[in-house]
Amino acid sequence: MSEFDLIANYFTRPVRRSPLGVGDDCALLAPAPGMQLAVSSDMLLEGRHFLSTVEPARLGHKALAVNLSDLAACGAKPLAFTLALALPSAEPAWLEGFSRGLFALADAHGCELVGGDTTRGPLNICVTVFGEVPAGAALLRSGARAGDDVWVSGTLGDARLALDVFRGRLALPQALFALARARMETPAPRVALGLALRGIATSAIDVSDGLVGDLGHVLKASGVGARIDADAVAGRVALAAHPAFAESALTVPALRTCALAGGDDYELAFTAPPSLRPQVLQAGALAGTAVTRIGTVEAQPGTRLVDAAGAALDLALASFDHFG
Amino acid sequence: MSEFDLIANYFTRPVRRSPLGVGDDCALLAPAPGMQLAVSSDMLLEGRHFLSTVEPARLGHKALAVNLSDLAACGAKPLAFTLALALPSAEPAWLEGFSRGLFALADAHGCELVGGDTTRGPLNICVTVFGEVPAGAALLRSGARAGDDVWVSGTLGDARLALDVFRGRLALPQALFALARARMETPAPRVALGLALRGIATSAIDVSDGLVGDLGHVLKASGVGARIDADAVAGRVALAAHPAFAESALTVPALRTCALAGGDDYELAFTAPPSLRPQVLQAGALAGTAVTRIGTVEAQPGTRLVDAAGAALDLALASFDHFG
Repeated sequence: MSEFDLIANYFTRPVRRSPLGVGDDCALLAPAPGMQLAVSSDMLLEGRHFLSTVEPARLGHKALAVNLSDLAACGAKPLAFTLALALPSAEPAWLEGFSRGLFALADAHGCELVGGDTTRGPLNICVTVFGEVPAGAALLRSGARAGDDVWVSGTLGDARLALDVFRGRLALPQALFALARARMETPAPRVALGLALRGIATSAIDVSDGLVGDLGHVLKASGVGARIDADAVAGRVALAAHPAFAESALTVPALRTCALAGGDDYELAFTAPPSLRPQVLQAGALAGTAVTRIGTVEAQPGTRLVDAAGAALDLALASFDHFG
Repeated sequence: MSEFDLIANYFTRPVRRSPLGVGDDCALLAPAPGMQLAVSSDMLLEGRHFLSTVEPARLGHKALAVNLSDLAACGAKPLAFTLALALPSAEPAWLEGFSRGLFALADAHGCELVGGDTTRGPLNICVTVFGEVPAGAALLRSGARAGDDVWVSGTLGDARLALDVFRGRLALPQALFALARARMETPAPRVALGLALRGIATSAIDVSDGLVGDLGHVLKASGVGARIDADAVAGRVALAAHPAFAESALTVPALRTCALAGGDDYELAFTAPPSLRPQVLQAGALAGTAVTRIGTVEAQPGTRLVDAAGAALDLALASFDHFG
């Protein structure tokens, strides 16, 4: 299969909104008047961002999902993406599955493939995504203020539990493993929530490397600190609500660690003034995504973890470092 | 060196024109009113797009140059780029050189780094570049018309001669090799020429995989064919004009083949009506880039090669296929 056949067979579809899609030297995008273009680029490598055991369709989903998650964190509406793909060989079954998973998520978000590159080499998937946001309305990391509530969307820690099973460090009942694996392999980017939080959240970030580490970026960019209820966070592990959970050997400390520093969650962590709690809850309801209040922004830098009773916790948490 | 230190030390510079650069979930771009955004993404792999012998600064230059070349082919003005980088290890000397070469070219074109990704893995460089072009003014592959002249910018074939030396298939006098190597490792993207050709050229493409193959994409997209003077093309090999050329063993057929199908040239091939020849020559003069008329667009599909006397040539030319 030639490079041109590969692109024609699996990655060329007519564009609907963009003036020009796949097939020329550049694609052309036309942001609406008054809109800024939000851009993010993420590279996925086998072994570091996904396991060789992942189904191609799930990998296609995840490659786009982690990028859409960055748009969500900025409150940007997805428009289009490019895909640069290095593949050891052109296997039709892999390409069919990968492109199917990729386009299913793209279609669900009205985000069209407009260009990219393919080459032979060690498997590497690089997606660059484009969204639009009204000038001045993007959710940034730098807007958190002392007194704001700290919130997180959805569930946390489940992806890390699946990874620990794959690594042989944990055993889980089958039903729990399937749930955790789906969270790891097919994260749901919180695009609708990001849009609903425009004008409400003072800052936002997507949780990819672990909640405490990613929240730390927000706090640092905003020049503040936070007090976080570790048990409120641990309560967001989806597996803990499953009927089969009692059969597992998972402990409260293990749940806390996974939820606080597990990584690969692709939820949104964000801050908002306490006066806007009803609006935050309504944004979550509109987006169909649970939102949970987990702490408070404080003037003093650093992150202070406490338990449900307010007692200080001293947890050794290491955030993911993709270059470590 | 952590991922964050690596980004902070080598790849973070304040943005001047973009509303938001490196350091948040997304970068923000603000195209001027009435402008469309041109986007292109190219992935570079060792062994396929560059050799391990290349100096890091030259590699940084080339990684951006091949992307700027795509903007040039669309007549788009460079604005910004993202860089996704997979590296086997974080070596300061490599990172210093790579980023120096990258930013030198970026600065020369007023194109700023706004975001990206870094991860540990087999060396892979994925740049996505953004430019702006007035709505409707982009140079496309699809606009060539029967009767148009076919033009090419700069020099062709020299990069391929350098590659053949590296591969041990050719010996060249040192002065010629240095010239050819510079063409291979530090191509000059024809951005100024692309801008100057807006409203003049009917179609354009950048020559990355070999002139005849890339011109074939234009002809196919435009539903036409062309008659190309192979000797006019061969006359564009820079080495042939060098005083040391007489010492080389290069033959006319070898020059023809390299110029017609060598690849890695990053020149522009374009078409324009014969009535606009003075304007094309003026565009080349304004851009400081030679432009050479090499043939004529014809209604009959396919590419017909002829020699300087107009006699048909039957050359077996294979275009680069990055997946072949």
